[in-house]
Amino acid sequence: MSNQKVTILENILSANDQLAEKNRFLLDKFNIFSLNIMASPGAGKTSVILKTIEALKSTTRIGVIEGDTAAVTIDADKVTAGGAYAVQINTGGNCHLDSSMIEAGLNQLPLESLDLVIIENVGNLVCPAAFELGTNTRVLIASIPEGDDKPYKYPGMYRGVDVLILNKTDLKPYVPFDVNYFRKGVTLLNPGVKIFPLSCITGEGFKPWIEWIKIHLKK
Amino acid sequence: MSNQKVTILENILSANDQLAEKNRFLLDKFNIFSLNIMASPGAGKTSVILKTIEALKSTTRIGVIEGDTAAVTIDADKVTAGGAYAVQINTGGNCHLDSSMIEAGLNQLPLESLDLVIIENVGNLVCPAAFELGTNTRVLIASIPEGDDKPYKYPGMYRGVDVLILNKTDLKPYVPFDVNYFRKGVTLLNPGVKIFPLSCITGEGFKPWIEWIKIHLKK
Repeated sequence: MSNQKVTILENILSANDQLAEKNRFLLDKFNIFSLNIMASPGAGKTSVILKTIEALKSTTRIGVIEGDTAAVTIDADKVTAGGAYAVQINTGGNCHLDSSMIEAGLNQLPLESLDLVIIENVGNLVCPAAFELGTNTRVLIASIPEGDDKPYKYPGMYRGVDVLILNKTDLKPYVPFDVNYFRKGVTLLNPGVKIFPLSCITGEGFKPWIEWIKIHLKK
Repeated sequence: MSNQKVTILENILSANDQLAEKNRFLLDKFNIFSLNIMASPGAGKTSVILKTIEALKSTTRIGVIEGDTAAVTIDADKVTAGGAYAVQINTGGNCHLDSSMIEAGLNQLPLESLDLVIIENVGNLVCPAAFELGTNTRVLIASIPEGDDKPYKYPGMYRGVDVLILNKTDLKPYVPFDVNYFRKGVTLLNPGVKIFPLSCITGEGFKPWIEWIKIHLKK
């Protein structure tokens, strides 16, 4: 890249980080626990979010910010129907959410009435990793049919997350997936990451994930 | 975006397009048919490429340019073992291939001895769509476990391709996937796209795809 391009990218990232801190301050002010959920398209972000809402909604007030590259409300409609507050963000073709979009999204949520904010990032294993949004926790959802080599191919994403959900464990009998090879790649990049293997279809493995969220709720 | 950023992005895309024409000219000069294969991570790009090599290698000389965000040679090694020439391109964290990377890749292939060049783009349903590489055909691989709503969520990618492979049809019994809803979204965006449903595991549906390539080979 030319120096000009590098400088502009650095400026964008630095402005983003400053705004992320502002978002974090706002979430902390209202004692809200927050998750930035990232994954490749189709790994099951929306399914995990919907099942999480279902499991928590009797005790926890949840807001969801839905990021999409186009003006579709498919996920936001599902989330609203599922019993949470939802805000839809159209990135206008952009490949990731950034802090200014989250600032706009938080402004549309009733923060004083929420315990948990979940951000569903744009489906992408590359770009979202570079953009801090201000959440407490960065969550990556991988899925069995994606294949066991993804940590090796997308190290930037696997290196930067706090929690790794391995979704679609119900498909294990039908696809080649070497769990040891996958875990070896994950451990090399991110030895401390918390891993939750689960299935949104059977519900297997979901309980530890829900318990983990409950422990981290602030009120 | 600021005007400065917009101008730089336009300059990058325009320079990329010019170089794409140069790549196309080079491929045409050697009568090589070429494919730019795009997909989200884990849709099966490498599996489709390996099975395509297997089906064609007795009659067709194939070169593959493998794009990855990191310095891994997993796919290039598989392609070489499968009987094709392979060049590995590390994008250094970048989320897509561009024409200058392809120019460098083509320079490392024995073009005078090839009939078909396949480019495996970085796994990403957003960014690669904006970058012409100079190939004859743009191919998108979708997969059943990704879900039936992807055309609606990633219109930029679905709109811009010539061929759509719907992979992992063997998983249909195990996941919710409404083929009519998927096809409706595809048709709205890209009514003329050629669709090949297939499975790399069972081989079902692979023959029409191979026949389609054979028809388009130039020598």
